Amino acid sequence: MALSRFEYVKQFEQEEKLLPNSWIVVRIDGKGFHRFCNVHSFSKPNDLDALQLMNLAGMTVLQEFNEIAIGYGQSDEYSFVFRREASVYQRRRDKLVSYVASLFTSAYMFHWTRVFDGRSIAMRYPPSFDARAVLYPTDENLRDYLSWRQADVHVNNLYNTTFWNLVASGLSNSDAEKRLQGTLASDKNEILFSQFGINYNNEPIIYRKGTILLPKSVLSSEGKKQRLIVPIFEDLISDAFWAKHPEILDKKAKTDELYDLGENEAQPVVRYQLEVQERRKAGMSKSETGNSLLATDHS
Amino acid sequence: MALSRFEYVKQFEQEEKLLPNSWIVVRIDGKGFHRFCNVHSFSKPNDLDALQLMNLAGMTVLQEFNEIAIGYGQSDEYSFVFRREASVYQRRRDKLVSYVASLFTSAYMFHWTRVFDGRSIAMRYPPSFDARAVLYPTDENLRDYLSWRQADVHVNNLYNTTFWNLVASGLSNSDAEKRLQGTLASDKNEILFSQFGINYNNEPIIYRKGTILLPKSVLSSEGKKQRLIVPIFEDLISDAFWAKHPEILDKKAKTDELYDLGENEAQPVVRYQLEVQERRKAGMSKSETGNSLLATDHS
Amino acid sequence: MALSRFEYVKQFEQEEKLLPNSWIVVRIDGKGFHRFCNVHSFSKPNDLDALQLMNLAGMTVLQEFNEIAIGYGQSDEYSFVFRREASVYQRRRDKLVSYVASLFTSAYMFHWTRVFDGRSIAMRYPPSFDARAVLYPTDENLRDYLSWRQADVHVNNLYNTTFWNLVASGLSNSDAEKRLQGTLASDKNEILFSQFGINYNNEPIIYRKGTILLPKSVLSSEGKKQRLIVPIFEDLISDAFWAKHPEILDKKAKTDELYDLGENEAQPVVRYQLEVQERRKAGMSKSETGNSLLATDHS
Amino acid sequence: MALSRFEYVKQFEQEEKLLPNSWIVVRIDGKGFHRFCNVHSFSKPNDLDALQLMNLAGMTVLQEFNEIAIGYGQSDEYSFVFRREASVYQRRRDKLVSYVASLFTSAYMFHWTRVFDGRSIAMRYPPSFDARAVLYPTDENLRDYLSWRQADVHVNNLYNTTFWNLVASGLSNSDAEKRLQGTLASDKNEILFSQFGINYNNEPIIYRKGTILLPKSVLSSEGKKQRLIVPIFEDLISDAFWAKHPEILDKKAKTDELYDLGENEAQPVVRYQLEVQERRKAGMSKSETGNSLLATDHS
Repeated sequence: MALSRFEYVKQFEQEEKLLPNSWIVVRIDGKGFHRFCNVHSFSKPNDLDALQLMNLAGMTVLQEFNEIAIGYGQSDEYSFVFRREASVYQRRRDKLVSYVASLFTSAYMFHWTRVFDGRSIAMRYPPSFDARAVLYPTDENLRDYLSWRQADVHVNNLYNTTFWNLVASGLSNSDAEKRLQGTLASDKNEILFSQFGINYNNEPIIYRKGTILLPKSVLSSEGKKQRLIVPIFEDLISDAFWAKHPEILDKKAKTDELYDLGENEAQPVVRYQLEVQERRKAGMSKSETGNSLLATDHS
Repeated sequence: MALSRFEYVKQFEQEEKLLPNSWIVVRIDGKGFHRFCNVHSFSKPNDLDALQLMNLAGMTVLQEFNEIAIGYGQSDEYSFVFRREASVYQRRRDKLVSYVASLFTSAYMFHWTRVFDGRSIAMRYPPSFDARAVLYPTDENLRDYLSWRQADVHVNNLYNTTFWNLVASGLSNSDAEKRLQGTLASDKNEILFSQFGINYNNEPIIYRKGTILLPKSVLSSEGKKQRLIVPIFEDLISDAFWAKHPEILDKKAKTDELYDLGENEAQPVVRYQLEVQERRKAGMSKSETGNSLLATDHS
Repeated sequence: MALSRFEYVKQFEQEEKLLPNSWIVVRIDGKGFHRFCNVHSFSKPNDLDALQLMNLAGMTVLQEFNEIAIGYGQSDEYSFVFRREASVYQRRRDKLVSYVASLFTSAYMFHWTRVFDGRSIAMRYPPSFDARAVLYPTDENLRDYLSWRQADVHVNNLYNTTFWNLVASGLSNSDAEKRLQGTLASDKNEILFSQFGINYNNEPIIYRKGTILLPKSVLSSEGKKQRLIVPIFEDLISDAFWAKHPEILDKKAKTDELYDLGENEAQPVVRYQLEVQERRKAGMSKSETGNSLLATDHS
Repeated sequence: MALSRFEYVKQFEQEEKLLPNSWIVVRIDGKGFHRFCNVHSFSKPNDLDALQLMNLAGMTVLQEFNEIAIGYGQSDEYSFVFRREASVYQRRRDKLVSYVASLFTSAYMFHWTRVFDGRSIAMRYPPSFDARAVLYPTDENLRDYLSWRQADVHVNNLYNTTFWNLVASGLSNSDAEKRLQGTLASDKNEILFSQFGINYNNEPIIYRKGTILLPKSVLSSEGKKQRLIVPIFEDLISDAFWAKHPEILDKKAKTDELYDLGENEAQPVVRYQLEVQERRKAGMSKSETGNSLLATDHS
């Protein structure tokens, strides 16, 4: 069969390569997640398990690509920042965007049972995500991008927290909407405090700030240094954050420095990675553990 | 929080829109599927269940996009051909490529249990796929693209069938490789016939030609006309195929004509769709059936 | 000097190649030609010499690229249609767009004196043009593109002819503008006819339809067949035009058929080419004639 | 005439906009200049007048775009560096690339007579140039780009100077080529010195380093501050250059500081600009001076 007669059609593939020496942000967005959340009875305004599932999927992407400097997730979106010098897939746009979307999706489904088993939420239909790649030429542009996403979660979460408290107190959805029309942040803070006794700043920081994922060196229980993808809950708009984690912008910054997990050791993302390592150490062959997410090759 | 101060970063998004009035092919490719097949003990050279799982995932993509004229799958790849006039996502490249990859991936995982339950093959780690979009300006180019993929499966499958029969007969992999070096198609046909009594042309057509997916109107058991995604196993290189299915190239060609499923009624892709309809007709609420793949909105 | 230390910057060049097998239209547009026309006292609404100068520049571009199927000029714009299969500069966008703009510009300046000498219009400042490349996947799209430009010259020229006749009759510019506000084509025809005795359809066709440039085989005075860039003034919206010049859409259509120049032999574009040939035949060395436009290599 | 029926073809225009906040380099290259130089008998290895003509054309481009931070010319190429924040034509690639090519070409032709009159070199055929746009995300990348071009002129000029001296001394072209095969820079310096008594470092700097064009504030003869495009001949690879001209990388750096032209006042680029101003001051109307290059609007 004359393969060669048809092979000319390969010329029509136009592989755009992303500009070198620029930050590449690949951002994942849930498709139709409003409905997906309803069908699966996710809590409102925030479902902690659903957020942790997003974090586990984000972790998988960071494990796959060692050229990701930082991951940032909030709501049904996740941003992955590839280093300026990243050479993954020769920076081919289609491949990068589609593979990150696919990998995130499959990891989200793979971890579903682990996360929702306690609540017996069966997956009713498969979720999906789209992705886009955006280039940022300077460190300042990149910081502003991440600040934009973190400011966004703040604005939305303050609104949603107030909205759902109003609804819980008996207002209809449309009445709650009307009540909030034209209100400033301070007004919403005031409603929360005076009407519901809620100090917004005491709300869980994962809801207010989203989740930052960073690769860090941590000390194992046996005192051995190891690399983990670590979830961090901090204000990344401030300079302090960037001074504290210099390796994000500068990969040569000391990254072998030990990071103290503190209370984040209890985070599902950390617990999962430690568990996988335990099983490995216990001498179970990879083929028996099914924890292959840590070992996925990308060819 | 000054969302607006950071919003300028949105300008950096450059949304490429695919040229109007051209065929868009989105092709999915398995990532690292050599290893994935080994880990999950797929049969060689072809695993029928694994191919049917690919078909079920392909079916999901065709159900989601009514602007797909034809789907074509072989090995660990699947091509989806969007019509010239398709306006999906305003033809934005990133969105189209990433969403198809994500949707295919989640459908592949969703249908896994259904397909592999009989064989008790548990998913050991999540699969993933990348995708690319390619434009074809003319009908001839599009036909040549599909012919290229079908010629490719022929070449590969003839080789693989001979190779694995040689290996099964006792040759080492490298000896089998050497045996086949420099052989023509006719040589391989001869080896298969003389050494293993295999007439290659009698091998299952799904292995030799791959799977074509088309939306067709078929008659239900109650005699009602309905639209189904139908798997078809034919030579698409010949003109006859295009004369028989004129609606692929010309969406105005009579598509309400009834298509006779014939023996393909037994194909998993058909059985699955009929089953879902049965359950619906049985008055079971959608929320009880979990068959939501058919009802996924895309927002 | 370490050239190599800096050479990595070449990687930043991203050479977009235009989709194969699609028509490429490169359209030239005059920059600030409103002012340029005023400064050089071009007649209104049409200056025949200025249009002929555009045609001479267009001719130069067709002489340079034998992959141009048709050129079309009107007002201060010119469209050049490269064949589907054109391989010029490997279809690199930047190179094609910039070189056509540059070549058109230099030819426009080069022919200035020839055209305007009689009227002693000195070039007061150099003109410039920008260019864009647009892809059309089908013959129908290409025809519609050219029809769009020819419909545009009709609409503009009818308006301008009426407007400047009104102004010539004593109206101020703004009064003429008001007079024409909301008028239909038929109204303008009526004004021209009843007020100025002008039958618009008798206006020079070059003003009403623009100029089409085609490479044609014509008979020289000595009866020898030769290829010339021929200016043609016809309605290209009708099917008749395309039936009459089949080689535009199909390069295999008989193009050695002799074309009868008719009265267009008097067109400057034709006269110039014949003159150059005369001088060549007269044995004058190329270096004495200065007619090197015909001999420009493109390396 | 139904303009609207055809207007849909506008959708096929895909206007790529260059990534914001990145340096844009538009580089012009002479088309077929090897032949162009021969036909017009330019001196070898360098023709000072021809280089000055390039500089006058470069000056015109800098006068047109106040968002150009630096121009750099050598041989038959010229680079124009648009500032990171440049918003010219909304950073549309086609428009920028084609217009710069066109403007450079027309200025080159416009100044031809001024430059070559003394030598009575008539333009035998019009020159043309192509252009490309390249993005550089960081200041360091931009400096490396310019260093690359300046290192290139050094390498080429040292070779050419030695080559043409060998030829002038009686070697055939191919013997001179052989003589230089495999030689290092030091070897060429040695040949020049020992064989021709030439100290390469004493060769005119414009040949060795190319021409840098910068907008500077200079003092007029009447002591008034004015902006001029100033030709500068310096090593731009060294840090010293960037410290001396901080306004290139940082447009907020004091640019009202007076720049001392020194001996560069005699450069044709400077003389031309001063002359134009003289004529203006002398009360001659613009329309009489023909110096309209300084006044070109871009609409």
